[in-house]
Amino acid sequence: MDPVIAANGDLAWMLAAFALVLLMFPGLAFYYGGMVGARNVLNVMTMVLSTLGITSVLYVLYGYGLVSGDSIGGGFIGNPIDYLGLQGFQADDGSGTTQPIYFAGWFILFAAITIAIVASGAASRMKFTAWLVFAPIWLTLVYFPMAHWVFSADGEDGFQGGFLLNDIKIHDYAGGTAVHMNSGVAALALALVIGSRKRKVERPNNVPMALLGGGILWFGWLGFNGSCALGANFLAQFVIVNSLLAGSAGMIGFCVIERIREGHVTSLGLMTGAISGLVGITPSANAMSPIGALGVGIFAGAVVAFLLSLKGKVKVDDALDAFAVHGVGGIVGTLCVVLFASESAPAGVRGILLGGDWDILWRELAGIAITCAFSFIMTYLIAKAIDKTMGLRVDDETEMEGLDPIIHAESAYEIPAAGVGHGGLTAASASRIATMDAAAPARTSTT
Amino acid sequence: MDPVIAANGDLAWMLAAFALVLLMFPGLAFYYGGMVGARNVLNVMTMVLSTLGITSVLYVLYGYGLVSGDSIGGGFIGNPIDYLGLQGFQADDGSGTTQPIYFAGWFILFAAITIAIVASGAASRMKFTAWLVFAPIWLTLVYFPMAHWVFSADGEDGFQGGFLLNDIKIHDYAGGTAVHMNSGVAALALALVIGSRKRKVERPNNVPMALLGGGILWFGWLGFNGSCALGANFLAQFVIVNSLLAGSAGMIGFCVIERIREGHVTSLGLMTGAISGLVGITPSANAMSPIGALGVGIFAGAVVAFLLSLKGKVKVDDALDAFAVHGVGGIVGTLCVVLFASESAPAGVRGILLGGDWDILWRELAGIAITCAFSFIMTYLIAKAIDKTMGLRVDDETEMEGLDPIIHAESAYEIPAAGVGHGGLTAASASRIATMDAAAPARTSTT
Amino acid sequence: MDPVIAANGDLAWMLAAFALVLLMFPGLAFYYGGMVGARNVLNVMTMVLSTLGITSVLYVLYGYGLVSGDSIGGGFIGNPIDYLGLQGFQADDGSGTTQPIYFAGWFILFAAITIAIVASGAASRMKFTAWLVFAPIWLTLVYFPMAHWVFSADGEDGFQGGFLLNDIKIHDYAGGTAVHMNSGVAALALALVIGSRKRKVERPNNVPMALLGGGILWFGWLGFNGSCALGANFLAQFVIVNSLLAGSAGMIGFCVIERIREGHVTSLGLMTGAISGLVGITPSANAMSPIGALGVGIFAGAVVAFLLSLKGKVKVDDALDAFAVHGVGGIVGTLCVVLFASESAPAGVRGILLGGDWDILWRELAGIAITCAFSFIMTYLIAKAIDKTMGLRVDDETEMEGLDPIIHAESAYEIPAAGVGHGGLTAASASRIATMDAAAPARTSTT
Repeated sequence: MDPVIAANGDLAWMLAAFALVLLMFPGLAFYYGGMVGARNVLNVMTMVLSTLGITSVLYVLYGYGLVSGDSIGGGFIGNPIDYLGLQGFQADDGSGTTQPIYFAGWFILFAAITIAIVASGAASRMKFTAWLVFAPIWLTLVYFPMAHWVFSADGEDGFQGGFLLNDIKIHDYAGGTAVHMNSGVAALALALVIGSRKRKVERPNNVPMALLGGGILWFGWLGFNGSCALGANFLAQFVIVNSLLAGSAGMIGFCVIERIREGHVTSLGLMTGAISGLVGITPSANAMSPIGALGVGIFAGAVVAFLLSLKGKVKVDDALDAFAVHGVGGIVGTLCVVLFASESAPAGVRGILLGGDWDILWRELAGIAITCAFSFIMTYLIAKAIDKTMGLRVDDETEMEGLDPIIHAESAYEIPAAGVGHGGLTAASASRIATMDAAAPARTSTT
Repeated sequence: MDPVIAANGDLAWMLAAFALVLLMFPGLAFYYGGMVGARNVLNVMTMVLSTLGITSVLYVLYGYGLVSGDSIGGGFIGNPIDYLGLQGFQADDGSGTTQPIYFAGWFILFAAITIAIVASGAASRMKFTAWLVFAPIWLTLVYFPMAHWVFSADGEDGFQGGFLLNDIKIHDYAGGTAVHMNSGVAALALALVIGSRKRKVERPNNVPMALLGGGILWFGWLGFNGSCALGANFLAQFVIVNSLLAGSAGMIGFCVIERIREGHVTSLGLMTGAISGLVGITPSANAMSPIGALGVGIFAGAVVAFLLSLKGKVKVDDALDAFAVHGVGGIVGTLCVVLFASESAPAGVRGILLGGDWDILWRELAGIAITCAFSFIMTYLIAKAIDKTMGLRVDDETEMEGLDPIIHAESAYEIPAAGVGHGGLTAASASRIATMDAAAPARTSTT
Repeated sequence: MDPVIAANGDLAWMLAAFALVLLMFPGLAFYYGGMVGARNVLNVMTMVLSTLGITSVLYVLYGYGLVSGDSIGGGFIGNPIDYLGLQGFQADDGSGTTQPIYFAGWFILFAAITIAIVASGAASRMKFTAWLVFAPIWLTLVYFPMAHWVFSADGEDGFQGGFLLNDIKIHDYAGGTAVHMNSGVAALALALVIGSRKRKVERPNNVPMALLGGGILWFGWLGFNGSCALGANFLAQFVIVNSLLAGSAGMIGFCVIERIREGHVTSLGLMTGAISGLVGITPSANAMSPIGALGVGIFAGAVVAFLLSLKGKVKVDDALDAFAVHGVGGIVGTLCVVLFASESAPAGVRGILLGGDWDILWRELAGIAITCAFSFIMTYLIAKAIDKTMGLRVDDETEMEGLDPIIHAESAYEIPAAGVGHGGLTAASASRIATMDAAAPARTSTT
């Protein structure tokens, strides 16, 4: 008997994956929040979380049309009028599976996570009002066109999609171009325009927080890559396992280089390696064998670690390493497809080193070049324009005091220091606790 | 070919959604835990988490019967004898989809999250023993009846369900009444009986923690609202996208009012706005267009922000704003259905302002009034009774010292303060780290 | 009409469950990280997270063969040559549901979480290089064989699986033996060899962190136990509800004993109880009635609490209680099947006290004895061998300073202490905040 494949079986996975991708937002906020200084935590978290508000409104109004509408510029941009307000998305078409309303939400998440990564380039020194101007302009002028290029397929009846996907025919499984290279390069351009932080060293205020945030990102990434299979099918299970393998191997690649260059293995390096591996597998998850996925992870992790070891020599202050991790990681993953893709994997692409056609090389290089150039130039121009008018950057006093207290009137922590008095308690309660300690040593893990 | 709809395709989503709702408990504990003072963190987290233990036992014993049993009081309460011990739920009925054992667990989660929100009204000053008495009584006398009213549908063979659903026929998609208005009003009543906190200002001890907790709530909410579609179907995708839109727009509504009234945008405000939008969409998710969902979010966020800006003038110390967020947010969402519901949306309800029947107005108002009055009066009476007998409140010394050390013999944090000595290390190790800093500046994000 | 059961409906749940189990890694890292001292946080988190890197490589290379290959030692070990590199797993077999590539990833997660629990036994005093040697050896010599014993079923055409499953026919639903007893006993053996910590008391540095980590574990556990049903079916919903009930009841069992023996209820106790209940239900989830699941939780929680109350009298420093929670909890759950299993539950096993066959007793006892003895002896030998050659333990100075700064060149926190100056701000900004406080008292929850 043939196995039954159900429309709503596919939908069931897509619903779960949607939720997983949503959790990437607090995950990313926690990841970045843990890595900045203690007085800039809430600022970067607010920037990350605010992207959902900004993107949702734009997408419902005209973003869906710009990305997925019939192309009005020879594959350069969709028609913004096509889906104004998404009013036509309320009716069930009876297919039982994902319908346009689903993809509206799903594309919002993809767009918002991209601009959220861009935010990191300006961490700890950008006016929040400037951010609220920059983000919608950047989405409209940079992200929406690029998403159209790579996410909109040509359709029936002369429906025209994006040129990178349909004309240049790049291989990009789940957003190596529009999401990762784009955000990484844009973060670099934004960091270049806004300038370096005043503080020479901004030590991570809460590394465990960053580690959990990174772990949540990994969890969400299974939804991100897995939902690009568009259902509960072989491809979905193949790419989530490859995502597990590449993230795991990314740890190894990063830590080996870190150990060689710095002399130690850090927890933050371990997690940065995992994220690098995940970025690398995003464009390549459907094209690599399991061994190949391990290779992508090791390679991406190692390259990112090597770049970060050179960071002291670079003048641009890409505060949270978005360019290295997302920009370069995305390029490495794409090049791995060119070089090592396994013809047996679902994508059926054979890498050049395994005897594949050289044709893929120029297509991928063209995709990388167009993506990076467009993202860098446009972001630079937008940032410069805002800088010249309203100003991108907070004043020096605000930067030195910290953006949380001055801009947001908040303080991330109100935690008494540990010490002799057991967390700053009065002597009376401390002695009471001391008594309890004596009575109940187990839960404080006495030896 | 007609699309195949599978019983286990529906179940697959319901299983995932179940897990998502479970994660709301540590999420809510983290959300509330981050907002109280540093010496009351563990107390409120323990109250929240303990609800799972209390509710699970009650539900298996007699709660399932009270909520879902055949009505024994004209739609007022189910028969507690109907499902004693859930012994009949162990056999597979062969349907392939969700069966009574699933709904037993699912209803436990709904009940427990409701009483967990109530806990917040008494944060930082309630005896833990009093909580262990209050919670089961409140579930039995307040939640179980109300859940019967709105969650139990009339069935075949004369099976009688709850009167709000079947007789008054209120529209409440996923628990705006029994979960949100109920918990918000009950938190207010509990706060009124127990009295205000002694400390004039209890600053949030860990805002990043609250932000992650809130983000986890949002993630879980997709499971909460999405599972009320009872399968992987059009409704499920429609409501999770509306939940994304309303939460996102809630940020905007809250922050605009906060900016106007307070002069700044806070990270905690951003997240409170998102939660307010999610509360607003809970009763209305199946009835609003995408534009309408944005409207619900903006409206709910703005109303809650406005209420909180008046908080200094109110005598009742609803410590974590449950009444504003859940009580008023739930009412706002319900009123949005009355006013703006889109007939094209799955519920097929037309709002009054879009030409709908005025009939819905009195039904919703009756539902709101009955829910709020019953919840307030009953909670007040239960709290008063406990206060008069065993006492609700800790003594003043305990409150001033903090509930964590005195009640739970624990301290939330043992974290050395940052400073010259690099986290309180000895001079020797600090100099060693300083050397490492010089050698490896990259990971501390040098400019 | 018969309900349609879809291959991809099953897969949809398995994909979601896979992601849930992955989140257990940052969850466990956060759980353990919160319980150690502030200068050893990152070390234990790194140990936990590194297991994914180590296990992924081993599993792709030869682990899959050792666990799931045709038995080459009379049911003792699989053939490592069978699946070298997993090259054959790239092709879709057309079944529409889970295929070998899925199980490769799934088994990696099971293996890695097991060795991650073992890490806790050596918390705060193990060389990281020794860990990187210990972990792959332990996986190869202890975990892979044991997983073969219990997870590899005999197949067609003379395919031979593991002896505990096929010959002794133990009942172990989801890994009570190979995962929990194994990891708990191995943690104990490792702790014995490495010796106790120098510091008499290592107070938990961040209890809220441990609570969230534990809550995430619970969430992931639904995926862990739920995915062992191998699809979206009755069994899956049955076991996730039993997992909810047992975790909830575990809180009660633990806290009652803690209250009796220590005089108070701690938040960490509450969560430890939940985890203990979850360990208990892991081998028994398919065999207990809902009442029985509550019983497993109460029993497991109470036994673990009782053991921990005796901890001061034990010489072995099992730092994070893995032996009590996972070892003893797993044994308790297995014994509950022997004694109380409900014949109506999916497994169809009748416990001895309910009139069942005594035959199950010796089978379970043999399984427990073989598992514990093999794990203890092998782990002891491996640890001793490493200790004699490269040394397991850091030097005393490193231990007293903390492993984070010395081994990883990192500090978990850089958080200014709360105080008069509002988080250590300068007087100028403090007064500015004080002004804001006066203007905006609401969000600092003034009474």
